[in-house]
Amino acid sequence: MAGYGGSSESDKALDRLVRELKRLPGIGTKSATRLAYFILRQSEEYAVSLSQSILAARQRLNMCSVCSNFSEAPVCALCLNPQRTDEILCVVESPADLEAFEKSGKFQGRYHVLHGALSPLDGMDEGKLRIQQLQQRLKSGVVKEVVLATNPTVEGDTTALYIARLIKYNGTKVTRIAHGIPVGGEIEYLDGATLGKALQNRVIL
Amino acid sequence: MAGYGGSSESDKALDRLVRELKRLPGIGTKSATRLAYFILRQSEEYAVSLSQSILAARQRLNMCSVCSNFSEAPVCALCLNPQRTDEILCVVESPADLEAFEKSGKFQGRYHVLHGALSPLDGMDEGKLRIQQLQQRLKSGVVKEVVLATNPTVEGDTTALYIARLIKYNGTKVTRIAHGIPVGGEIEYLDGATLGKALQNRVIL
Repeated sequence: MAGYGGSSESDKALDRLVRELKRLPGIGTKSATRLAYFILRQSEEYAVSLSQSILAARQRLNMCSVCSNFSEAPVCALCLNPQRTDEILCVVESPADLEAFEKSGKFQGRYHVLHGALSPLDGMDEGKLRIQQLQQRLKSGVVKEVVLATNPTVEGDTTALYIARLIKYNGTKVTRIAHGIPVGGEIEYLDGATLGKALQNRVIL
Repeated sequence: MAGYGGSSESDKALDRLVRELKRLPGIGTKSATRLAYFILRQSEEYAVSLSQSILAARQRLNMCSVCSNFSEAPVCALCLNPQRTDEILCVVESPADLEAFEKSGKFQGRYHVLHGALSPLDGMDEGKLRIQQLQQRLKSGVVKEVVLATNPTVEGDTTALYIARLIKYNGTKVTRIAHGIPVGGEIEYLDGATLGKALQNRVIL
């Protein structure tokens, strides 16, 4: 783009911005171009503020040495919170999943963030996930139950099974979040696999 | 977000990044959070490169003093290109529209970028568009025809009519790109053949 009329030299900065924006997930050439023009139309303060926030976030945030969630402190606030129990540990794929659970307010234990799920074809093998750190964490014996809350996808299920086999040996209870009908969902529109699971895992009232 | 467990202090950088990303068009809280986590997972080089490209683009690109398209030089390459005719001028809403016409290869005249369309309810009145600059440009009498190529939307049509009335008095031929463009469609996303037809079938206003 922006190479019209032999102007390849004059629009380098725009081309570079589009190229960098395109590296973001879900952003193609059209979206990147649209975002670039938006940025150009704003005041320079916005460009300064946006670029500073990107740099600051990347430089200040690192993985919490306990749970691997992103944190500005060496150990994150969730891991330091004395009001949460150490006995139950929820293993999630991403910080976004952790946040979803936190928003629900239904979990009072600790978390462990894997930063992905096993997907060998995409180059995601066990070495790229924070599985070793999880094993290390379990060695103290404080954790009584590990809830595997990876996504209900092929990758998430595989990851859950893989981790379950790895950590089961030392007597820790290992559970998987339940499959079922989402609250507020309509049975009519749900897929057979979900309905099958919902029937299979029915609970006595 | 990221305010769980009383950690409001420790995740300021992440919150700020999400807030800045949310200001981009079409990016909501979920997308912004996803982009932020993506940036955090990449090498620091990417964060540096992305933020530099944003700043550089904003600081280096300004509006061309002739056509108002974004350009690093005071006058853009398109306006300086001696192989194009000065006699026909294509008025577009945005730089992306200009690029769409350039990609079609069906137009050899000059452009004028309005940077928007009239939409009083959204605060877009004639003072916010580059209409005065267009009038100034036409004073020399070199331009024999103005093709109004604003989008085929209510705002675009209104803008075309408004400009047509403003500039018609001095004998310049004023045309509107033909319908051939689907009504309600966006120029930026159309193929070159359709855009070529639209230019070819332009009608006198």
